Amino acid sequence: MKKISELRQDPVTGAWVLIATGRAKRPQAFVQKDKRAIPPKEDCPFENLMKDAILVLDDRGESYRLTKKELSYLKKNWLVQVVPNKYPAFGKGICQIERRLGPHRWMDGVGFHEVIITRDHEHPLALMYPQEVASVIKSYRERYQALKDEDCVEYISIFHNHGKDAGASVFHPHSQLIAIPVIPPDVERSLKGSADYAHAHKGGCVHCTMLDFERKDGRRIVYENRDFIVLCPYVSRAAFEVRIFPKHHNPRFEVSQDDDLPAIADALRVALAKIYKGLGNPDYNFFIHTSPTTHTTEFDHYHWHLEILPKTAIWAGFEISTGIDISTIAPEKAAEFLRKVKI
Amino acid sequence: MKKISELRQDPVTGAWVLIATGRAKRPQAFVQKDKRAIPPKEDCPFENLMKDAILVLDDRGESYRLTKKELSYLKKNWLVQVVPNKYPAFGKGICQIERRLGPHRWMDGVGFHEVIITRDHEHPLALMYPQEVASVIKSYRERYQALKDEDCVEYISIFHNHGKDAGASVFHPHSQLIAIPVIPPDVERSLKGSADYAHAHKGGCVHCTMLDFERKDGRRIVYENRDFIVLCPYVSRAAFEVRIFPKHHNPRFEVSQDDDLPAIADALRVALAKIYKGLGNPDYNFFIHTSPTTHTTEFDHYHWHLEILPKTAIWAGFEISTGIDISTIAPEKAAEFLRKVKI
Repeated sequence: MKKISELRQDPVTGAWVLIATGRAKRPQAFVQKDKRAIPPKEDCPFENLMKDAILVLDDRGESYRLTKKELSYLKKNWLVQVVPNKYPAFGKGICQIERRLGPHRWMDGVGFHEVIITRDHEHPLALMYPQEVASVIKSYRERYQALKDEDCVEYISIFHNHGKDAGASVFHPHSQLIAIPVIPPDVERSLKGSADYAHAHKGGCVHCTMLDFERKDGRRIVYENRDFIVLCPYVSRAAFEVRIFPKHHNPRFEVSQDDDLPAIADALRVALAKIYKGLGNPDYNFFIHTSPTTHTTEFDHYHWHLEILPKTAIWAGFEISTGIDISTIAPEKAAEFLRKVKI
Repeated sequence: MKKISELRQDPVTGAWVLIATGRAKRPQAFVQKDKRAIPPKEDCPFENLMKDAILVLDDRGESYRLTKKELSYLKKNWLVQVVPNKYPAFGKGICQIERRLGPHRWMDGVGFHEVIITRDHEHPLALMYPQEVASVIKSYRERYQALKDEDCVEYISIFHNHGKDAGASVFHPHSQLIAIPVIPPDVERSLKGSADYAHAHKGGCVHCTMLDFERKDGRRIVYENRDFIVLCPYVSRAAFEVRIFPKHHNPRFEVSQDDDLPAIADALRVALAKIYKGLGNPDYNFFIHTSPTTHTTEFDHYHWHLEILPKTAIWAGFEISTGIDISTIAPEKAAEFLRKVKI
């Protein structure tokens, strides 16, 4: 009897995904022609250094506050600028406790919403120089550090949308940072799964255990450098999903040192370049999952990482109603394909 | 200070959504021109009664097994047919316990995957006659009843994808039923939330409490008939999300009696017609959330319902990484708009 599919359970969250091996596609079936039209620079809102930039990095990766003194230098030499989002999802307000309306709870959407813009209009992160990508990661960390102690900030989400189908409303490459007053349910589940594992395994880290297994197994590894590992997760939510983990246990992205930045940037750039070149520049989202901002040792069991989800499928009725995502290629095949892509 | 947004927490699951009131759109901004091209019937795989039909309903809503004796009658008079999905996500196999691979768990995707096809090629459920919609609901129930005691069937998901962006690969209106060997995590969370509430409130039903409140408040109600209530949930995951609840507590969709079918069908048809006419035939998914199949009283606190999610936005990096969905119209405004749509 031909096997139709395989259900796989995430060891951290308990979530199930379905790997539809029976109707699986060959990796080549996911390859598309890159038909992206580059809109003219003249119409782009992200071309020039903005007056309200909160943080600017120059082309050597040095960070600056935008003062009058630095303005003319930075106008010429800026590489990354962080600005407030003009259409924020969260914004200024009074930090408050939850309020009630009948059986419902609510609170104002108090927080911060920033946009991280790289100078190059045309080239996505996949095609940038390693030091440019390192500057982007550095700007993530600097803004995280600056916001984590603000009132009401419980969690900071850093993410990047590439392409219209992934939700990017502006073509010019940019990432976003949103600081929010609650711990997101998805992150809370991972924290709980990770805490439960630590409790049952003398303080062990479920991610470290999983990484040890994956490195021995080898089939889902895409790339490694000295400090980071790039793999297609056994429990992939989408075809060609890729995750990037620090090899050494670390619950918090924001404590990464300057010395760590080149390795993070290398892992991210290689992963994105393999997806770009191998699959023909598909749309994708990537994001960082890290510990909440609170200063405790409560989350020391957690292991920060980065997830890349190419838009290779539509979440339809089954996925939305069950939370069980369907992937139409085995992660082992996806990893084998990506391993071989020359960048 | 202008309010940017509001976080709202689902009283059942604990999930948060963001109602982006600051950048909210007017209801009219969601109205599109219906540009759907109807593909020719000649190329449609769902035009004729299929030999492997598992269940057929005739134009009076009577159900039949497809025997030689009935074949010529049903070829002329079929209204609904249920067939096995040619490209199933779950299929035949040996019912098994979970297996392990290092830190991972997996099992074969054993189950059933069926397609519920209505005869009319062109008209979606929104435009069908009430008795046609009732026959569709009846076919859902009959197949649910037939499959719920099969080995390995822990949960049965019934859903409908309308339009390409909602994942419908065939234009001809059809629904799907997938019977699976696990309780989906999303459903499990609702069951737990509902059980916790019952435990804390002398056996009370969180959904009944919520419905009482909503009927008194009135602002989010779209439509009511004698037995069902149609509303935009306070915690809407998407703009113009609509949910349909039986007014009388009932944990299980499949125990609906023949007498109940017209009321369910009326509520669904009115909701879909208001979305169709008010918003210009947008793509959408709808699905049933009901108790797992096990014969126990364990889920008596649960309250089955139907959810309709129009494709009014893209789930981008923030939503995917946090699980916090963003809706750009307040449910109160969406309900006010839908209430006024004449059908």
